[in-house]
Amino acid sequence: MKKITVAVIGVGAVGVELLRILRQRNFPCERVRVFARSERDIEIDGHPYHVEAVEKEEFDGIDIALFAGTEGEKGASTLYARKFIDRGAVVIDNGNDFRMDPEVPLVIPEANRDAIAQHKGLIANPNCTTIQMVVALQGIHRRFGLRRVLLTSFQATSGGGRKAAQTLWDETRQLCQQNRETEHFQEVRCELPAISGAFSRQIVCNAIPQIGGFKEFEYTSEEWKVVNETRKILGDDTIALSATCVRIPVFTAHSEAVYFECGRECSRQQIAETLAESDGVTFFPAPEQFPVALDAQGGDAVLVGRLRPDPHRQHAFWLWCVADNLRKGAALNAVQIAECLVEH
Amino acid sequence: MKKITVAVIGVGAVGVELLRILRQRNFPCERVRVFARSERDIEIDGHPYHVEAVEKEEFDGIDIALFAGTEGEKGASTLYARKFIDRGAVVIDNGNDFRMDPEVPLVIPEANRDAIAQHKGLIANPNCTTIQMVVALQGIHRRFGLRRVLLTSFQATSGGGRKAAQTLWDETRQLCQQNRETEHFQEVRCELPAISGAFSRQIVCNAIPQIGGFKEFEYTSEEWKVVNETRKILGDDTIALSATCVRIPVFTAHSEAVYFECGRECSRQQIAETLAESDGVTFFPAPEQFPVALDAQGGDAVLVGRLRPDPHRQHAFWLWCVADNLRKGAALNAVQIAECLVEH
Repeated sequence: MKKITVAVIGVGAVGVELLRILRQRNFPCERVRVFARSERDIEIDGHPYHVEAVEKEEFDGIDIALFAGTEGEKGASTLYARKFIDRGAVVIDNGNDFRMDPEVPLVIPEANRDAIAQHKGLIANPNCTTIQMVVALQGIHRRFGLRRVLLTSFQATSGGGRKAAQTLWDETRQLCQQNRETEHFQEVRCELPAISGAFSRQIVCNAIPQIGGFKEFEYTSEEWKVVNETRKILGDDTIALSATCVRIPVFTAHSEAVYFECGRECSRQQIAETLAESDGVTFFPAPEQFPVALDAQGGDAVLVGRLRPDPHRQHAFWLWCVADNLRKGAALNAVQIAECLVEH
Repeated sequence: MKKITVAVIGVGAVGVELLRILRQRNFPCERVRVFARSERDIEIDGHPYHVEAVEKEEFDGIDIALFAGTEGEKGASTLYARKFIDRGAVVIDNGNDFRMDPEVPLVIPEANRDAIAQHKGLIANPNCTTIQMVVALQGIHRRFGLRRVLLTSFQATSGGGRKAAQTLWDETRQLCQQNRETEHFQEVRCELPAISGAFSRQIVCNAIPQIGGFKEFEYTSEEWKVVNETRKILGDDTIALSATCVRIPVFTAHSEAVYFECGRECSRQQIAETLAESDGVTFFPAPEQFPVALDAQGGDAVLVGRLRPDPHRQHAFWLWCVADNLRKGAALNAVQIAECLVEH
């Protein structure tokens, strides 16, 4: 197998995770080049990396370029992806800018790895919230046909980028500081003085039902991403899907309560078997074994538990799933797409 | 109007809130007696209270007895309610022990105040999670007939009692302590060493999809309470209701993402009008005005926002509601029932 050169563009939360995962998975590349706005030297898990300034445009000889775009703002891919592609690279973009472009495959390898073959230089990585839900549901959809999905998410702050994650830590320390003499919970003052964080409201001691701006029918951009991306990945525009996406005071790993109805007859036992056999899923069949966000941090699998039938409706169920939003929700999925490219 | 004597049994989180609300609402009573396991003197908001030992059984002359039972364990009402009733009191029980007893009215004044008249000495206060959802939905049910409700909750630790709320504060301080040199969120170590808290898992930096024990179909007791209590209060066993109840790191005020389908034709505009007119509800029609847990703390109303139509199904909607779980979710609702008793 030809040893290849990989580029990582961006060294934010996802960029760092990309570099970590390339090393952890012993990705078959001869060289990793790192690009960001400015030239500098960084260290990740004790390994040094030289960061090149992306404006220099010395993009020759790169086989795969992994763009770590930040959610919620335009990614670097809008400026540089075309230039990498023109010099021979295949771009895998973590940002939101090209996901719904009909010319661009949107890929979760467990669900639609065949779509990779249709790429024209650019492959899009879905949103974190979408990825873990679709990994959990893809086997069920294949076997029993999803007809309807209702998602409520409990999302980590790191999904909002560095500033959002830093805001949670700053607010947590501020909470401890302003209550430093307080032993008893009843005396804790939760409201912090106005701070200039990443969120419209205080995140510590709170849950914020807004991720992204408000769009059609007053759903947020995050809520629409789940709908549109899921339909594109599963290749089925008939799934009646909607979501409420909520930020909670957790640093890493999203949790999701997913309600789904199947179009074909199925029992709880059959859904459980399907989950147990689904690629990328670790299924916990016993109720008291439910997975939590802290279990998912740093791991690769989508952890699924609390599968329950709707007592009032046939072929309808709830499940609970958690995954590391920076890994399977972003960097790991991108590296898995790169691995598929290398294999073929 | 005859001035009456009120007793509060229990001085846990809900008991304290009962005493606070009786004073805040200037409840028309001549005397408030406070009972707990042991005799002592306490102070709430600067006001002194003498606590009598409940074993002494000096229950004569009490008109209304408010029992502040702890969720998740048998309430004091199982031991003492009958004795208060036999000596002439009407008992309003915040605990879970009598809620589904067909002889006992289960009351949210905004939804079914007429049921109070059927009491035989005991009236039950519903579970916090049920109360705020039913206050939000009762006007809609009356006008458009709820056919289906799917609830995902984001519940505060104080709903689990004093020990649960204290655990969140202890863990928060421990998190700050073990990361006291850390400025940057990426270096924060979230996992705490094993601690003997109130939860099966660490609650800080986490979301725990279990409240209560596992029951039929692997739903938790909390999830079944919402189903059974809602049907009893609304007097309609045909509503197809199920829930996923989750504890998050918030001290006070539950948040709920509620999906509902109506049996009769209705537009978003009609649902919005109904919410704006619903007793006990403060409705926020603009999407960016969504209410959050911190807004609800210490307040009386159930705050409702983020009303959205399901884009794929007629007469189906999402809403987001928050309320103070210790006030409207417990103590305030009990005092409102007591006010109804005094009025009639």
